Amino acid sequence: MNPINVAILGATGTVGQKFITLLQGHPYFRIHEVVASPRSAGKPYAEAASWKQDIPIPQDVAPMVVKSLEDSLESTILFSGLDSSVAGEAETRFAKQGHFVISNSKNHRMDPDVPLIIPEINPEHFEIIKTQPYQGAIITNSNCSTMFLSMVLAPIHREFGIEAVQVTTMQAISGAGYPGVPSLDILGNVVPFIGGEEDKLETEPQKILGTYTNGTIIPADFHVSAQCNRVPVIDGHTETLSIKLKKKASPQQVAEVLASFSGMPQEHKLPTAPEHPIIVMSDENRPQPARDIWLQGGMATMVGRIRSCPVFDIKMVIMGHNTVRGAAGAAILNGEALVELGYLQ
Amino acid sequence: MNPINVAILGATGTVGQKFITLLQGHPYFRIHEVVASPRSAGKPYAEAASWKQDIPIPQDVAPMVVKSLEDSLESTILFSGLDSSVAGEAETRFAKQGHFVISNSKNHRMDPDVPLIIPEINPEHFEIIKTQPYQGAIITNSNCSTMFLSMVLAPIHREFGIEAVQVTTMQAISGAGYPGVPSLDILGNVVPFIGGEEDKLETEPQKILGTYTNGTIIPADFHVSAQCNRVPVIDGHTETLSIKLKKKASPQQVAEVLASFSGMPQEHKLPTAPEHPIIVMSDENRPQPARDIWLQGGMATMVGRIRSCPVFDIKMVIMGHNTVRGAAGAAILNGEALVELGYLQ
Amino acid sequence: MNPINVAILGATGTVGQKFITLLQGHPYFRIHEVVASPRSAGKPYAEAASWKQDIPIPQDVAPMVVKSLEDSLESTILFSGLDSSVAGEAETRFAKQGHFVISNSKNHRMDPDVPLIIPEINPEHFEIIKTQPYQGAIITNSNCSTMFLSMVLAPIHREFGIEAVQVTTMQAISGAGYPGVPSLDILGNVVPFIGGEEDKLETEPQKILGTYTNGTIIPADFHVSAQCNRVPVIDGHTETLSIKLKKKASPQQVAEVLASFSGMPQEHKLPTAPEHPIIVMSDENRPQPARDIWLQGGMATMVGRIRSCPVFDIKMVIMGHNTVRGAAGAAILNGEALVELGYLQ
Amino acid sequence: MNPINVAILGATGTVGQKFITLLQGHPYFRIHEVVASPRSAGKPYAEAASWKQDIPIPQDVAPMVVKSLEDSLESTILFSGLDSSVAGEAETRFAKQGHFVISNSKNHRMDPDVPLIIPEINPEHFEIIKTQPYQGAIITNSNCSTMFLSMVLAPIHREFGIEAVQVTTMQAISGAGYPGVPSLDILGNVVPFIGGEEDKLETEPQKILGTYTNGTIIPADFHVSAQCNRVPVIDGHTETLSIKLKKKASPQQVAEVLASFSGMPQEHKLPTAPEHPIIVMSDENRPQPARDIWLQGGMATMVGRIRSCPVFDIKMVIMGHNTVRGAAGAAILNGEALVELGYLQ
Repeated sequence: MNPINVAILGATGTVGQKFITLLQGHPYFRIHEVVASPRSAGKPYAEAASWKQDIPIPQDVAPMVVKSLEDSLESTILFSGLDSSVAGEAETRFAKQGHFVISNSKNHRMDPDVPLIIPEINPEHFEIIKTQPYQGAIITNSNCSTMFLSMVLAPIHREFGIEAVQVTTMQAISGAGYPGVPSLDILGNVVPFIGGEEDKLETEPQKILGTYTNGTIIPADFHVSAQCNRVPVIDGHTETLSIKLKKKASPQQVAEVLASFSGMPQEHKLPTAPEHPIIVMSDENRPQPARDIWLQGGMATMVGRIRSCPVFDIKMVIMGHNTVRGAAGAAILNGEALVELGYLQ
Repeated sequence: MNPINVAILGATGTVGQKFITLLQGHPYFRIHEVVASPRSAGKPYAEAASWKQDIPIPQDVAPMVVKSLEDSLESTILFSGLDSSVAGEAETRFAKQGHFVISNSKNHRMDPDVPLIIPEINPEHFEIIKTQPYQGAIITNSNCSTMFLSMVLAPIHREFGIEAVQVTTMQAISGAGYPGVPSLDILGNVVPFIGGEEDKLETEPQKILGTYTNGTIIPADFHVSAQCNRVPVIDGHTETLSIKLKKKASPQQVAEVLASFSGMPQEHKLPTAPEHPIIVMSDENRPQPARDIWLQGGMATMVGRIRSCPVFDIKMVIMGHNTVRGAAGAAILNGEALVELGYLQ
Repeated sequence: MNPINVAILGATGTVGQKFITLLQGHPYFRIHEVVASPRSAGKPYAEAASWKQDIPIPQDVAPMVVKSLEDSLESTILFSGLDSSVAGEAETRFAKQGHFVISNSKNHRMDPDVPLIIPEINPEHFEIIKTQPYQGAIITNSNCSTMFLSMVLAPIHREFGIEAVQVTTMQAISGAGYPGVPSLDILGNVVPFIGGEEDKLETEPQKILGTYTNGTIIPADFHVSAQCNRVPVIDGHTETLSIKLKKKASPQQVAEVLASFSGMPQEHKLPTAPEHPIIVMSDENRPQPARDIWLQGGMATMVGRIRSCPVFDIKMVIMGHNTVRGAAGAAILNGEALVELGYLQ
Repeated sequence: MNPINVAILGATGTVGQKFITLLQGHPYFRIHEVVASPRSAGKPYAEAASWKQDIPIPQDVAPMVVKSLEDSLESTILFSGLDSSVAGEAETRFAKQGHFVISNSKNHRMDPDVPLIIPEINPEHFEIIKTQPYQGAIITNSNCSTMFLSMVLAPIHREFGIEAVQVTTMQAISGAGYPGVPSLDILGNVVPFIGGEEDKLETEPQKILGTYTNGTIIPADFHVSAQCNRVPVIDGHTETLSIKLKKKASPQQVAEVLASFSGMPQEHKLPTAPEHPIIVMSDENRPQPARDIWLQGGMATMVGRIRSCPVFDIKMVIMGHNTVRGAAGAAILNGEALVELGYLQ
């Protein structure tokens, strides 16, 4: 396969930098363009970006001249880490121009004709892009906390049925971008509020676990109640779940269903796919963000403490790497699935 | 009133040190004895204790020779911050010898004839000490996380009735004592497990909110499901709650019931009582441990983000100072209530 | 004494908030005006300020309508926590209009006719304000790290003479204001650079320890080499010093000179003065910011580990509260000294 | 080359775990034995060790039965991460039995006949093992903070001559092992004391930079003054240096000498050798532990802010990975050099 040219939208931001880092040596995709705000446009990338990754800027990207969002682009696929203040309009425009926009932004996630894809769960939702009025298409991935939640709910819902979920998140500061959270607000502290986050957790999973029929996605019918907190952790979102099932199941049964879960990315051995999308841990004090985020290259969802709940049926702790599987890595996997399933032709 | 002599059991530990700090200049109580393990016994307190408080060791306590748990004591009231490995037997022995043991330890909390007191909620439970087979008595306060949970559940239960509660805690490291949590385990991390903690949160509130009748405490009949996490915060436990009510109530109604709550310590103006035991905060990102633990001298429970829950009825965030209202301050307030209600005669 | 009306310039900022906090119940000064940028002007203070202190906004200040820097003011003394981007011009203008500007900003510190005052050290430098071409005057205090360094160097210089000083600082994040340091830059990290800071540490102490003669301040003649680092600490700057003396002295002699140091604020018992401006600590692992910043109400400089240096003569660790003694508290003490020494008449 | 069997002494500890992690897939060495205290002996490694690394226990090591320090061993090379309370006697005994002990422990570092090796600097010191009265030998690496200091001093000393050095360290918590530093002591804090550390920094560099002549190491003749601090960083020691030179040099000259430094491990392309042992960084706020410790696989010493010193000649900031280049990685590189230079025959 010839490498497919891709552009990074919002290339200087936190998610954009992660796209660049994760795409190094990618077997399908070659970074051809880096795109940012007019303020950065025209500068070499190395000068425009305040680089915060733990590897240096890749040598082929460093000298690329940053393009403006207003420019017309040449790449087939655009990976978008755009800020939500500009993503909505820009992504639509690029899709009209014939690009496949794989977006991490929230703007189009809940649009009826835009798929919200986790390819282990709902690759059949890609079909809905055929109903989009664009020459290209817009494909989205979920909010970072939704990612881990949906990954765990999906196999449980299929096997036992879910009625309701209570989730409390403890989210890493990298989720807020850069400069993001002021240190005076979070060092030695917990901030029990993240703007807009709870709403995403309460609505996105139902769309992801929904049913695609005749050009429509019918959302799954369970309820989620979310409480989101920021904690002084660099990377890795931790979530406590309590789940009410339709059909009773023991913790052991739930653990088995989770540990054996896999889907289209594993079957097709997509380059970024984790071999095991869900890792069930047995130590009573795991998963922990400082120890476990890099399992499966940052692409797995870790689950621990699966036990009975005296109020609902099952409770557990889940955790994942919010800027890899929860953001840039999720979009790249969506891009790989798009290619593998033949939607580029 | 003549000052009442008190002893501090476990005086060199974290809770013991907090007792000593909080009892400075107390209008009822005078520290007369400091008691610790045989290893510390015989040494001046200043030498025996690895002092970790942010004020120096009080000058009257520093030279006191530490007594051993085996010694016979002279004080009327013994404030116990003993480790649970020794508290059970020692507290019983001291109660037999005629002392009033006001304990922060978990050992006797669930004994049928031992009251688990939060004086704003259940001061009538003190009566049960008359059924104890001791010349003295044992009175306990709750686990630190239970304290804030029960304080908030009590007025809601009275007014609207509670069916079930989901609680996730984010607990400060000071709750684990010293040396406690190794820094390599918690810096930039979340540990989703605290040994024995969830069980306390799931059983203690029902006893505290229970009914005292004919020498028996009949526990309240709701269910609690708890998920406990350690976070890198020095002092202050944060908890997210989702509550299922028996009688529907709006967030505004719940807020009013909480903000206007008060009880016996407020009526009697006990020295350590907060004027307002519950502070309802209106900012969407409060309460926060780094900003709010010292409201009302560390003796209040802060509540924020009272809102509807799409799964249960009401959700909210609560927070309090775990080593003040959640431990030593709770025991001192119990001591004050004991005196004020005339149980020492 | 009738209370003196004071205004807070830069009232919504970090230093401004600290001024307001520390001036509660002040025996000399009454907050009469709060002044900030045009963006905040016209709003009630409680609405204009993003309040970050650990006590609520004082009730008399909360409703005050914020004035603009362009407005003419009524107060005798103006405490300035202005950002250095505007402090230079504004402070000069207010001094011309007859106000006594007590500034924490860096702009005028090194002006030949502006005193840089630490009243324990150089209260005689106040005299130089008589040479200022203003109806009022400008008085400055030092940079926060300079404060603790100068406080310790002063008695050593007087007694033994100083030739050279090597200082490395580990500075708290509160020194950078709000939003200040992004959490992604400092959580679990050390940043070995603070813009402009080293230059202040290398030049301000010589002016403070300088000699006032005939309307001129002749700087002291030692050299300072500074290396400044930001560390993940909320409040409290720690500094390691190595000092080359003119006249040899033992660690014990240095400790005695430091412990017995006091000056004009102690003699006059100024309201904000620490009883002991320097606290010499004997524990081998003190001072520590998390434990010791509040000694003497945050107005002391703590010194520990005074020992021989195999390269110079003496080394030690010093520490102090950077936003109290190192900023707002320093300016208030300067204001008190100004009043007490009769310069307002 | 056939793989050489190695044993890990102190295999369950922090350094031991790092040895095991870093030796995975090593081209020279194969882990044949894991050795620990009698408490662990007899158990499978996976059960005996409280594993804290961010990769799982290697599958070949997990089931190995832990041997006791008292057992006789089969391996040619013993990598020792033993606690200093037992290392002294045990290492001597094993050397007598014919093993080559490559030790990270401090006990024998300053023995006259034991080389203290950094192979980029003093590989000729290996010769002194021929004077040891053992069938085997003891070879040591330096203290972690000494490692980065010596690496930077060596090329400067050769080129310009060093008279004196002032160094202040800001050391990561992983340097204290596990459980190590209690979180209550270091979260949001700086501890200005690390037992025994300053003495090592003040004496080890002179031995490492010393001259080997006729069976004796004559130490270099400069003076070092060290001030050591613990900061809330997981991995990575940062140090500020101020250096007095014998022959003047500009910052630019010093930077060039450092950037071009290399030695025996680079010439021989040893498996663990960094291509560039010293990385000179140009950004004014680097190096930083949270960003730069993994350059060159954790085996480089990073240097930044090389500038003139107003008191001495040159100042700079250095940083390195304390448990890789500063401990286990250093010992492994010493082992590789030992093999490559033919000392095993």
